[in-house]
Amino acid sequence: MYISRMPFSKIFASVSVVLLLAIPAVAADALPSWNATSAKTRIMDFVSATVTEGGSGYVAPDDRIAVFDNDGTLWTEQPYYIQLGFALDRVRALAPQHPEWKTKEPFKSVLGGDLKAIAASGEKGVIELVMATHAGMTTDEFNKIATDWFATAKHPKTGRLYTEMTYLPMRELLDYLRANGFKTFIVSGGGVEFMRPVTQKLYGIPPEQVVGSTIVTEYALVDDVPVLRRLPKIDFIDDGPGKPVGINMFIGRRPIFVAGNSDGDYEMLQWGTAKPPGFGLIVHHTDAVREYAYDRKSAFGKLDKALDEAEARNWLVVDMKNDWGKIFAWN
Amino acid sequence: MYISRMPFSKIFASVSVVLLLAIPAVAADALPSWNATSAKTRIMDFVSATVTEGGSGYVAPDDRIAVFDNDGTLWTEQPYYIQLGFALDRVRALAPQHPEWKTKEPFKSVLGGDLKAIAASGEKGVIELVMATHAGMTTDEFNKIATDWFATAKHPKTGRLYTEMTYLPMRELLDYLRANGFKTFIVSGGGVEFMRPVTQKLYGIPPEQVVGSTIVTEYALVDDVPVLRRLPKIDFIDDGPGKPVGINMFIGRRPIFVAGNSDGDYEMLQWGTAKPPGFGLIVHHTDAVREYAYDRKSAFGKLDKALDEAEARNWLVVDMKNDWGKIFAWN
Repeated sequence: MYISRMPFSKIFASVSVVLLLAIPAVAADALPSWNATSAKTRIMDFVSATVTEGGSGYVAPDDRIAVFDNDGTLWTEQPYYIQLGFALDRVRALAPQHPEWKTKEPFKSVLGGDLKAIAASGEKGVIELVMATHAGMTTDEFNKIATDWFATAKHPKTGRLYTEMTYLPMRELLDYLRANGFKTFIVSGGGVEFMRPVTQKLYGIPPEQVVGSTIVTEYALVDDVPVLRRLPKIDFIDDGPGKPVGINMFIGRRPIFVAGNSDGDYEMLQWGTAKPPGFGLIVHHTDAVREYAYDRKSAFGKLDKALDEAEARNWLVVDMKNDWGKIFAWN
Repeated sequence: MYISRMPFSKIFASVSVVLLLAIPAVAADALPSWNATSAKTRIMDFVSATVTEGGSGYVAPDDRIAVFDNDGTLWTEQPYYIQLGFALDRVRALAPQHPEWKTKEPFKSVLGGDLKAIAASGEKGVIELVMATHAGMTTDEFNKIATDWFATAKHPKTGRLYTEMTYLPMRELLDYLRANGFKTFIVSGGGVEFMRPVTQKLYGIPPEQVVGSTIVTEYALVDDVPVLRRLPKIDFIDDGPGKPVGINMFIGRRPIFVAGNSDGDYEMLQWGTAKPPGFGLIVHHTDAVREYAYDRKSAFGKLDKALDEAEARNWLVVDMKNDWGKIFAWN
């Protein structure tokens, strides 16, 4: 009744004011799964500064490079790396063609479901598993194998598809950075060709913006059809000090935003934050109920040195339990 | 007089028809330095097909990946690779710190200006030159050295800055492809960190879209400042069969447009054109007056096998002399 006595222009003005007031709210909602803690504020203050022309924190759009670790930073890495889950499934699928695996480690332990023995086989064992399951085919064939696996493979604890095990707050952060002119990259210790089939769908990151570990490939013609064969030989390990090396090789410029969650990201965090306005972010797994709680003593995603130095280096430590309202989209 | 008797709406309609007719003309002018030959028509027909939704040649924007060789395809490679010119200049600049070079090959020949002797030193000699001039500093230092060199270094025949030795028709082609949703990459045998400081300015291609040969780098902290040291060790040679390997490693998907000019691009041309709608283009250096004329017997940019097979593989051979109205912007 009251409103009907207002002249039309005044109603319009009121509506406009409401709409105008709504704009900052919409902008703040770019990270709706983040609680209103200082973590969210620090991220948004940083991004605001980088896009504020004339401000001291302004960064030209071309230089707005953001890099994200994958395992434990964008998707879960417990109870073991998703790529290890893939390798285990592949060993089981290929076992009929390899009767010798019944008595040969680490394959015997995989087929027997003995995860502890696999872990005990150490780096050598893991490399043997990777080579047996990731090499010996063409790149096109491997792409199909990985794509098919992701379509059905499920996380052992949640029963959800692995592709549903991404962190919603981090996906929002990727979107938010891109909306502010950032170019987003994955820089992961994982195999680059294992991740590439799904990164566009999961994170909006195209294959050419995924940096990862590689095995040697070899070009060949088969009946005049060119193929790239994946050989059982490690080419490049994109982890630890390899991450700044990979960033330099693949991207060719220094990121100003670095997100990681483990000591494998320590050197990349140093590299990206050595000079202003470099922003470092560490995802700290503190939520045993909604995800996992681990850091210094974990076999996967050990976070120790980087956590010790985070405060002195001004790296933002995100406390999953307190800073994230939601962890997975299906929570 | 006649037109003034027309009603306004009719004049407007006439103007509109003229404007509409003008649109294809404007589009055709996307390649103004290309003569109206079949080469230009084939390129434009291909691009038109890739962007025509519902057509048999349509390609989704994400898959519009175009790769370009650099030496001899985007800029001149005669009388020697521009990067070799850089190495020669660096040997001269560093000679005072290396008295032993006066008597040691291939440095002695460089300091004596004996290009034939340098060529005779073969691959071993060239690698020694590259290592002595491209390694031993940090990546930031090398970036500055290359950037400074490009600011003043001149082509030995034309006296123009090397950065003016790019082919205008190819720069138009890059722009034209990007205007039609293609993502453009350089895939060159040249050193990736030698090219990256200038590719954005010369070609509109950012550092992260440059694939090239690499040397090993090592991460280190110097007084808590992280650096990447360039070591005198070849990491990856992005040439010949290395080009599809590099494309797969860095880009992670198969290009549908491949441009090259030599047998070093042969495998990359095969890889990109093995299935439809892959388009292959070879720049054939046929203009001894405006640039250089060379192919099968050239020390730099030898074009032999790829030329033999071009017709059978339906690769477009661009005849610089007849297909290009202008070669350099300053012509």
